[in-house]
Amino acid sequence: MAVNLSVKTADQLAPVAGVDLFVAEAGIKTPGRKDVLVVHLDKGNTVAGVFTLNRFCAAPVQLCKEYLANNAQIRALVVNTGNANAGTGEQGRERARAVCASVAAELGCEPHQVLPFSTGVILEPLPVDKIIAALPKRRASSWAEAAEAIMTTDTLPKAASRVLDIDGHKVTLTGIAKGSGMIHPNMATMLGFVATDAPIIRPLLEQLVKEVADPSFNSITVDGDTSTNDSFILISTGKSTLPLVDSASQPAYAQLKAALTDIATELAQAIIRDGEGATKFITVKVEGGRSVAECKAVAYAIAKSPLVKTAFFASDPNLGRLLCAIGYAGVNDLDVDRLELYLDDVLVAVDGGRNPAYKEEDGQRVMNQAEITVRAVLNRGAASATVWTCDFSYDYVKINADYRS
Amino acid sequence: MAVNLSVKTADQLAPVAGVDLFVAEAGIKTPGRKDVLVVHLDKGNTVAGVFTLNRFCAAPVQLCKEYLANNAQIRALVVNTGNANAGTGEQGRERARAVCASVAAELGCEPHQVLPFSTGVILEPLPVDKIIAALPKRRASSWAEAAEAIMTTDTLPKAASRVLDIDGHKVTLTGIAKGSGMIHPNMATMLGFVATDAPIIRPLLEQLVKEVADPSFNSITVDGDTSTNDSFILISTGKSTLPLVDSASQPAYAQLKAALTDIATELAQAIIRDGEGATKFITVKVEGGRSVAECKAVAYAIAKSPLVKTAFFASDPNLGRLLCAIGYAGVNDLDVDRLELYLDDVLVAVDGGRNPAYKEEDGQRVMNQAEITVRAVLNRGAASATVWTCDFSYDYVKINADYRS
Repeated sequence: MAVNLSVKTADQLAPVAGVDLFVAEAGIKTPGRKDVLVVHLDKGNTVAGVFTLNRFCAAPVQLCKEYLANNAQIRALVVNTGNANAGTGEQGRERARAVCASVAAELGCEPHQVLPFSTGVILEPLPVDKIIAALPKRRASSWAEAAEAIMTTDTLPKAASRVLDIDGHKVTLTGIAKGSGMIHPNMATMLGFVATDAPIIRPLLEQLVKEVADPSFNSITVDGDTSTNDSFILISTGKSTLPLVDSASQPAYAQLKAALTDIATELAQAIIRDGEGATKFITVKVEGGRSVAECKAVAYAIAKSPLVKTAFFASDPNLGRLLCAIGYAGVNDLDVDRLELYLDDVLVAVDGGRNPAYKEEDGQRVMNQAEITVRAVLNRGAASATVWTCDFSYDYVKINADYRS
Repeated sequence: MAVNLSVKTADQLAPVAGVDLFVAEAGIKTPGRKDVLVVHLDKGNTVAGVFTLNRFCAAPVQLCKEYLANNAQIRALVVNTGNANAGTGEQGRERARAVCASVAAELGCEPHQVLPFSTGVILEPLPVDKIIAALPKRRASSWAEAAEAIMTTDTLPKAASRVLDIDGHKVTLTGIAKGSGMIHPNMATMLGFVATDAPIIRPLLEQLVKEVADPSFNSITVDGDTSTNDSFILISTGKSTLPLVDSASQPAYAQLKAALTDIATELAQAIIRDGEGATKFITVKVEGGRSVAECKAVAYAIAKSPLVKTAFFASDPNLGRLLCAIGYAGVNDLDVDRLELYLDDVLVAVDGGRNPAYKEEDGQRVMNQAEITVRAVLNRGAASATVWTCDFSYDYVKINADYRS
């Protein structure tokens, strides 16, 4: 059902030196399914992350923040699906620590050098014994298999890779992500991991992870539900011959930022293309606003509206619903008479009403497409923002009503 | 499909002296269907209203606000369904004025003494000729028939009535409302009209309409979409023998406020019971907050979450989704370890995790009911708020994907 999304093969995903990938089947929810990913990192790496702002952030998120704040030298990541370990209180933190300790013992490091991640059902105790029993794990054949090991309601694994030449030095960036429902990341996405062999100092990596998350994972929504477990992690192994990146004013920083944003956007869009029940991929661009914040507010009002999303599902050019959403987005001094609304190249509304030249068949032609761009021009400033979303179908209800996700 | 909602018969709805009701079939969208309501008001009445905050507020909303701001003596209301006259610019205002002029001519008053209301599809020109041709209209048999004439996707008409004795004076209050989708009123609901024969001076009626709307129409959501046409109107005909109510400190004011809030809450709840595709009626109570605003934010986060609403549809006690919604409601210093979450009388979560005594079968028993109360106790203050919503079903998608509403 995913919209224009294909599976990346192993040869499309460049290995990143300093990163070793392992998978396991712990039978957390479904017997025989890959549900644990362990990532070993060589010493000398730097790691930075952004995490959900949900107050009920999961136990693993709490530990990740603590370990990273303490500047631990991270040596491994451990990810399980099938259980979010969220809404589990102190017991949840204890169980996450036990998983970290098990990975650490095998690797010969301290438990706080292992970052834990979980995704799945909330409010149920983590089956820690099953996870520990499934370790040791076996080496993954590639990043493609690692991407499979973190899927939940995802119908396809999500991965992306780039190989750059920066000043004659080969630099590799490869990442994976998962997520299909409960997607409205605030600071980060459900789970996203991107590794590069470029050497980047820790403070700069922390800046980079925020700058990269904002126009990518923080610009998507499936259902408006900000998860308890969103985590986006950037890993720099430093194995490339590229000289150390230690200042945001270096040209290499700009090149890395552009490539990382590109990869993160591809992964974030892949989550939308595989959004629960999605049949359409919608780009919402808001231009001519006074601030990025107000553009994003308008874009999200459109992207979250169940009425807009069901109209897209039906390919019904019921475009008044777009105006309605723009109107309630919270821009209290918006002059609706100055707004222009486009569906791809079709001018739908102008002067506070329907474009006199608009024809239903033009709207219908665009609505029939699998990929549609809504563009709202506010004509009150120079700021803009783009958000990606999917439509709202019977299958969204089916997936979330039939399945304890 | 409506949840525990029955049709009020004519004898359950007391007439209000000074109010005459008329209906017509203009064939705006469906031939032969009642789609126009005209309300004549005797001179000497007072009228106050609250309207949508949507920036794309409809042409009739703009005119209502203008006429009421000018202190016009209102003599009639005219309501059409099948077309919202929203997103229609200056032409929309002209057409609404033409409808008012037609009603005024018949009644022998000025056009600005007639308040117009519309509900239906947005961004399409109002078929003003059809509406004017359908006038004169015929007298409605009762408020019950008036309620039918303002329905759109509603499956049942909505009306409520109370007869009070205030200091030995008989006082009547009767009202109607419509709405089923695009329901997340901000200041008022889709369309609600309540009339009383109690004499109330205009400034007090204006205070009353806000005080009554807040805990009733402003406390419901079906789909989170704040309509372009929300209007809630309070009419005082002054025909009761009750002495003039001209101060909020009069005991009669408190009695009227309580009865009006009661009637408005019944109408608002009726909209939720008949919410598009609704199979469950959900009450969300948030207690122990620092402010009503934060309680309402938490309640709406729960009430708007597609994941929560699909779990209710499935009768699945997937209660982690409730915690997740509470966590992203925007209360940034919420201590989740102090929260208590109840499903009716069942304590689900405590100390930041699942109540150790919670049993899935207890949650399942409550989830199987058609009416469910979610109660979140924040334990950080004395404020509280209640919001009503419905579940999210296949039929919601069907109604909004198959039908141009």
